Amino acid sequence: MAATLDLAGDPVDLTTALVNVPSVSGTEAELAEAVESALREQAGHLEIIRSGNAVLARTRLGRPSRVVLAGHLDTVPINGNLPAKRTGEGDDEILHGCGSVDMKGGDAVLLHLAATVTAPTHDLTFVFYDCEELDAVRNGLGRIERELPEWLAGDLAVVCEPSNGVIEAGCQGTMRVELRTTGKRAHTARAWMGINAIHALGGALLRLQEYQARTVEIDGCLYREGLQAVGVSGGVQGNVVPDEAVLAVNYRFAPDRSAEQAEEHLRQVFAGYALTVVDLAVGAMPGLSAPAAQQLVAAAGGPPMAKLGWTDVARFAAAGLPAVNFGPGDPTLAHTREEHVPVAQIRRCADVLSRFLSGGSP
Amino acid sequence: MAATLDLAGDPVDLTTALVNVPSVSGTEAELAEAVESALREQAGHLEIIRSGNAVLARTRLGRPSRVVLAGHLDTVPINGNLPAKRTGEGDDEILHGCGSVDMKGGDAVLLHLAATVTAPTHDLTFVFYDCEELDAVRNGLGRIERELPEWLAGDLAVVCEPSNGVIEAGCQGTMRVELRTTGKRAHTARAWMGINAIHALGGALLRLQEYQARTVEIDGCLYREGLQAVGVSGGVQGNVVPDEAVLAVNYRFAPDRSAEQAEEHLRQVFAGYALTVVDLAVGAMPGLSAPAAQQLVAAAGGPPMAKLGWTDVARFAAAGLPAVNFGPGDPTLAHTREEHVPVAQIRRCADVLSRFLSGGSP
Repeated sequence: MAATLDLAGDPVDLTTALVNVPSVSGTEAELAEAVESALREQAGHLEIIRSGNAVLARTRLGRPSRVVLAGHLDTVPINGNLPAKRTGEGDDEILHGCGSVDMKGGDAVLLHLAATVTAPTHDLTFVFYDCEELDAVRNGLGRIERELPEWLAGDLAVVCEPSNGVIEAGCQGTMRVELRTTGKRAHTARAWMGINAIHALGGALLRLQEYQARTVEIDGCLYREGLQAVGVSGGVQGNVVPDEAVLAVNYRFAPDRSAEQAEEHLRQVFAGYALTVVDLAVGAMPGLSAPAAQQLVAAAGGPPMAKLGWTDVARFAAAGLPAVNFGPGDPTLAHTREEHVPVAQIRRCADVLSRFLSGGSP
Repeated sequence: MAATLDLAGDPVDLTTALVNVPSVSGTEAELAEAVESALREQAGHLEIIRSGNAVLARTRLGRPSRVVLAGHLDTVPINGNLPAKRTGEGDDEILHGCGSVDMKGGDAVLLHLAATVTAPTHDLTFVFYDCEELDAVRNGLGRIERELPEWLAGDLAVVCEPSNGVIEAGCQGTMRVELRTTGKRAHTARAWMGINAIHALGGALLRLQEYQARTVEIDGCLYREGLQAVGVSGGVQGNVVPDEAVLAVNYRFAPDRSAEQAEEHLRQVFAGYALTVVDLAVGAMPGLSAPAAQQLVAAAGGPPMAKLGWTDVARFAAAGLPAVNFGPGDPTLAHTREEHVPVAQIRRCADVLSRFLSGGSP
């Protein structure tokens, strides 16, 4: 029997209940079942459908704009950190457990809104999806995009991934390239007959050391780029001048650069080297000039921040929606055994989004 | 039944016969048996003993000096290059096959001398040994050195490894060091929180590119040093600033430098880097000022050359014997499928050594 979830009650208790239903990627059925049942029983004003281990719910109030709110139900593997545990008291209370940060706190906020915001100023679509922690190809949001694209349409997307309760907008692109040097093999006892491919990487490494990464401001968000070697390999054996070496470099680039511009930039930085792009995900512009986004920023209070990592925000942005991250928890704790979230952030996120969706003033 | 070897006949025919008895390292028994039988039947003036798959033979004429002549019986694995094949005619004839270069041509020369130089001007010790192509710890010459050291005593050692029929004297030392850089791991999206250990290798690679290797003349031999990166590795995954990287460097140094001096030199070149010595073999001085060595150089005619690779010559040198390489075949063809030797070099080496050992003029 699926767990019973109280959607209208305290979102912290709801987070605790969600954390206590294990949902490692690929095994989200029990949690999806509990979410679907609870929505059907406690949010009768919503149209609800199921797609595999994803649950979709929406209003059809004919509002002039629609906000899509999304959270994934799955977690990374459990690491001795279940069931949930609560420590501290009052404003200092902390909820510990697998998924508490990434991202059942956000899911609880969304479920609470689904049940309690019955007269929103925007139409609402809630998307609880599966397999976000796996390869992009298995991502449940990608499946919904292909099979049920109308369920992702709207004027603003809010992805409740952990952001310390701050609006994080857009995200940087990421590109991995390989620089491959070639030489000529020879016995090291006759090194002058060879050409050392590893030595030839020296120049590229110096360029990386000297590289000055850009900082770009877009819609009030600061994006800080980065260019880092992430792998190097070369060598045949201890007495051979190596004829091949490979340096892998990861470029994180602000969303004002397209994939083509990012690649062109790297080709300039590494002029003279053979360069191959081996991995690429474009960034997402913050899109905070959209009216609904401005309302959300106002409701949240503080200044928006640039999202640094790549999240499904970029998927919405690629589909043309302004999209932000806004959720409880410190993203640097995600995927750690010590994953934990201050309960005050869960309640604050629920309050901010509730005000925003109800049209209330900050 | 062991093959029958005609020691006093043409050393090229003898080489052919030796090549046609397979003797990959560890399986030299049949060849050792044939060598021992032939020596007992055709070189009755020698004292002969067996040590595993090694065969030792010597004169005891009471000469004032003793020359040790050594060759290994084993080969690298057969690579579709048996049985032996002879192509061309006369002075251009070529003998092809596994071991033709490394070093059954040299073995044939030694066996021919053992049977034919019955009144040498020096006492002679012949050492046919096993397992030279394996790790140093299994080397048959090392076993003889430990168990039968008196069989390696003398005033000059001639190792008949391929040297293109030229006297190669001494050998360079070889040292492999690892430079290890450390940094601080971070997500590449927040690269400024990390320190990239791969970037830190850039300076070491530039020093390698700019390094001017010494050329040193000793006893008329030119030693050309080399300093080469032979391996590089580092990297955690595509989105992580790596906190460790390792560069392996091979230094080939002239025999005027001790192990300590070589290490000190590398510590200067790579000042600022954490350096560990992971492999070391000291070189061997040419020792050509010894009287017997001078006679051999005179018999060979041309100028002596510096030996570049590390051979068992260094083992004799470490034991205090002047030691040279002198044998038929191009050492760069050793261990190749296309291994082949000009037969004229086999005959010339036999002639030179025969004159030298008989006290004849060049």
